[in-house]
Amino acid sequence: MISGTTRLIAHIGYPTSTFKAPMIYNPWFDARGIDAVVVPMGCKAEDYAAFLPLVFRLSNIHGALITMPHKVATIGLADRVSVTARIAGAANALRLGVDGALEADMFDGEGFVLGVLAKGQRLDGIGALVVGAGGVGSAIAASLARAGVARLAIFDPNAGAAQALAGRLLAAYPALRVETGSRDPAGFELVVNASPLGMNAGDPLPMDVTRIDPAAFVGEVVMKTEMTPFLSAAAERGCRYQVGTDMLFEQIPAYLEFFGFGKPTADELRRTAAISY
Amino acid sequence: MISGTTRLIAHIGYPTSTFKAPMIYNPWFDARGIDAVVVPMGCKAEDYAAFLPLVFRLSNIHGALITMPHKVATIGLADRVSVTARIAGAANALRLGVDGALEADMFDGEGFVLGVLAKGQRLDGIGALVVGAGGVGSAIAASLARAGVARLAIFDPNAGAAQALAGRLLAAYPALRVETGSRDPAGFELVVNASPLGMNAGDPLPMDVTRIDPAAFVGEVVMKTEMTPFLSAAAERGCRYQVGTDMLFEQIPAYLEFFGFGKPTADELRRTAAISY
Repeated sequence: MISGTTRLIAHIGYPTSTFKAPMIYNPWFDARGIDAVVVPMGCKAEDYAAFLPLVFRLSNIHGALITMPHKVATIGLADRVSVTARIAGAANALRLGVDGALEADMFDGEGFVLGVLAKGQRLDGIGALVVGAGGVGSAIAASLARAGVARLAIFDPNAGAAQALAGRLLAAYPALRVETGSRDPAGFELVVNASPLGMNAGDPLPMDVTRIDPAAFVGEVVMKTEMTPFLSAAAERGCRYQVGTDMLFEQIPAYLEFFGFGKPTADELRRTAAISY
Repeated sequence: MISGTTRLIAHIGYPTSTFKAPMIYNPWFDARGIDAVVVPMGCKAEDYAAFLPLVFRLSNIHGALITMPHKVATIGLADRVSVTARIAGAANALRLGVDGALEADMFDGEGFVLGVLAKGQRLDGIGALVVGAGGVGSAIAASLARAGVARLAIFDPNAGAAQALAGRLLAAYPALRVETGSRDPAGFELVVNASPLGMNAGDPLPMDVTRIDPAAFVGEVVMKTEMTPFLSAAAERGCRYQVGTDMLFEQIPAYLEFFGFGKPTADELRRTAAISY
């Protein structure tokens, strides 16, 4: 029940019509007796830099969930940016620090990692290939480094993007083995498609699936269909896998912890959610 | 249930802790299946002029309820201001017109008038005395003029304020008989305390109650206690009366009509409200 004491979590992006977070967070707040609410705010790109600081001057603001098209711009508007968000070059969560500073973090990659771990795949010390060094690939690479992978291969058709990401990773994680230039999945325990390939019918596969170790774990970021051609081909080889939307839903406990509301399990959140996922 | 399609009604003021509107509007929206939500936003005076236009650029904004300390500033920020708000010199409701213009109206006085009418007191053609020509007194005077009173006496210890209000009333309602300079209630069918007298223990009464016609209807705007010394004294004389909070609650149907959500009765709203009033 929204009242004058309710803490406001602004869910800022445009367009808002596909937002799912309110239907997941708000029923959980209700069930837990937490006086907070997630409210969609359809802010366009050209208004964001002016709007965001004013939102964080509201007396009842608690934090913000940031989504398209504002994730990159958020980095430039925050006072403090987490290592993960800095490497990703984007942020999707904001809160006020105890000193009033605006703190940014990025949980897309965290959601990917939490989902993989929940499926029984360990990350500490393994080798991983990430194909795609855009926003989501950078976020996943940052979170894999944070999770302790020993070796991280980054591939992007834009070699400069891959190199730049490799440089940001090495600056934060000097002990990490970072490679660029190849998308051969052979020899990796974890293989990730973080490219848009699979969005459109007729897209080529993002890598040579026949070279993936059947014992490897395969991750996908494309959400258009659950079983993309890439995932289907990997599953046929016997690989375990994670579908694209898991990244979104698995990051919610991390978000809630960031906002200071405890850290429920993904299953607990699923039970109270007003949508099924 | 808030989702990405929910229409947002920003409830803007500071502080927010005493806001009641969310607990009245939101359960009614739920009961009626209206996909809208009232959300408190604790905007401070110094941020309002920058924040308000950006709120109305959100793609999911539907309107705003404006409260202290922003009612006067709203007049200067709107593209179109109703006659009532213009006379009151303040607005407490904003919406986007079909052409995208920001339209302001003022319902404090409307709530006062609707409450008085609902209690069986007619206004058309009568004489009324309003003591207090500040924000709320001006709003009540504007709405009494709109409701068709024939004669309106305005008193304020600040004679200039009373004169200025009289001028605004006459400009909009040239046929109205407007008087200033006396707070003698004798001969008026409606008598209103729109001054702050009654807020503090030991305040003098706002007028000579022994001069009020026992057949008159007496209205109060002080909300600190329900039966103020002024209302108690008038009730003892046999006057019918309206307590201060009625003005707030009776205006809600007018607000909802302004926002295009139909015009429920005050009783219908009371049945679904999450607070009793």
